[in-house]
Amino acid sequence: MENLLIDDERLDYLLAENLRIIQSPSVFSFSLDAVLLARFAYVPMRSGQIVDLCAGNGAIPLFLSARTQAEIIAIELQPRLAGMAKRSIDYNGLQNRIQILNDDVIGIASKIGYDKYDTVTCNPPYFPAADASDKNLKEHVAIARHEIRLTLEQAVKSASELLKQGGKAAFVHRPGRLLDIVTAMRANRLEPKRIRFVYPKEGKEANTLLIEGIKDGKPDLKILPPLYVHGPDGGYTEEVRLLLYGNEG
Amino acid sequence: MENLLIDDERLDYLLAENLRIIQSPSVFSFSLDAVLLARFAYVPMRSGQIVDLCAGNGAIPLFLSARTQAEIIAIELQPRLAGMAKRSIDYNGLQNRIQILNDDVIGIASKIGYDKYDTVTCNPPYFPAADASDKNLKEHVAIARHEIRLTLEQAVKSASELLKQGGKAAFVHRPGRLLDIVTAMRANRLEPKRIRFVYPKEGKEANTLLIEGIKDGKPDLKILPPLYVHGPDGGYTEEVRLLLYGNEG
Repeated sequence: MENLLIDDERLDYLLAENLRIIQSPSVFSFSLDAVLLARFAYVPMRSGQIVDLCAGNGAIPLFLSARTQAEIIAIELQPRLAGMAKRSIDYNGLQNRIQILNDDVIGIASKIGYDKYDTVTCNPPYFPAADASDKNLKEHVAIARHEIRLTLEQAVKSASELLKQGGKAAFVHRPGRLLDIVTAMRANRLEPKRIRFVYPKEGKEANTLLIEGIKDGKPDLKILPPLYVHGPDGGYTEEVRLLLYGNEG
Repeated sequence: MENLLIDDERLDYLLAENLRIIQSPSVFSFSLDAVLLARFAYVPMRSGQIVDLCAGNGAIPLFLSARTQAEIIAIELQPRLAGMAKRSIDYNGLQNRIQILNDDVIGIASKIGYDKYDTVTCNPPYFPAADASDKNLKEHVAIARHEIRLTLEQAVKSASELLKQGGKAAFVHRPGRLLDIVTAMRANRLEPKRIRFVYPKEGKEANTLLIEGIKDGKPDLKILPPLYVHGPDGGYTEEVRLLLYGNEG
């Protein structure tokens, strides 16, 4: 296959899903957060339509394709990342089930439709825009990780606009932004229903937050059991190993 | 000691603190939530002033008296419960350090002072007022457990009014009310800083929420490690045994 990989890109494995994904150490590699969100989110199994916002190199759509037969539309602002995602989808032969749109999350419902999707997933930029210039980050990384082109509030608004009533939006973020995300969700008709905190190991503070809301849902929040990433020996816990490597891990 | 106990009251032990407390199965007994809140709350060690709202039979002030030399004022609306608390304080010889006021939490700062306390603790009524009439509860229990005479928002408002700038308010509640409590706290200048979720055992959803806010604090929320009440064998976990029984448990 010619022109599959550009510059320092490589073809990595998604072991649990038996898929391949194009990554680049200098441009974009998916993180554990994408794996966790893809497993946390409720998705319709057989039919329906899913949108993944801030898709990056397409990790979440690829993970979801192993869990659902629903159509998936992935939105990614950066052409370079959308291109990686597109090549990965093609390589895995999933072009009939996953569509990559190189577009802005802001206002996306006006292009692909309001009030029509079953599930929206979003692993948005986490860090304040101001921190990006301090750190002299490469532009691709800065835009993917910092709220430069998309704020948390804008991401939540777009998710809500896309969803039908009763549709579910799932986000991954930092626990320090819990109050901001629940405030933004309620302001956009997304009632928080399930939260799961992710801890790097036992005895540490949570470093990741998974949250799901239902459009126009009734208040009834559940705090799920904690998820630990590393065990006492420093290796991944059984739960995370299963997510990453499947049954053969 | 004459007239120490009324009706079906009994003199129970607070083992870890080496104190005694008057309880009554038909009127009021403290719950594990009071123990957890008393340990979770930040208290000044040597000096300062603490207020406990919704003090019930005085369990939290008694627990706190083992952790701090600060003055403690306990507010309890129901004369019957305030009387139990008063007799327990006297029995333990703590009348110079703990003061029981039989008064309403609503508007209490106008009586004991605005903007002057270091810490406020509150284990408020948890359940909707409407559920109390359904259940045909005895009046003492109904008022202590249900939002009949005090709503969550009113409790948060009183806590904030009492606290000095930088003072800390700690509440225990149900996780389903997380969004309500953080909304009420922010609306009353209490910035949530620490949350700890309590799980009945591993693998279950959280059933209790501990939350602390700082008056006029800066946003910086931490999610502490989870607290499990019961271990796989059904008994209390080591952490809860220590809270309940101290080192001799």
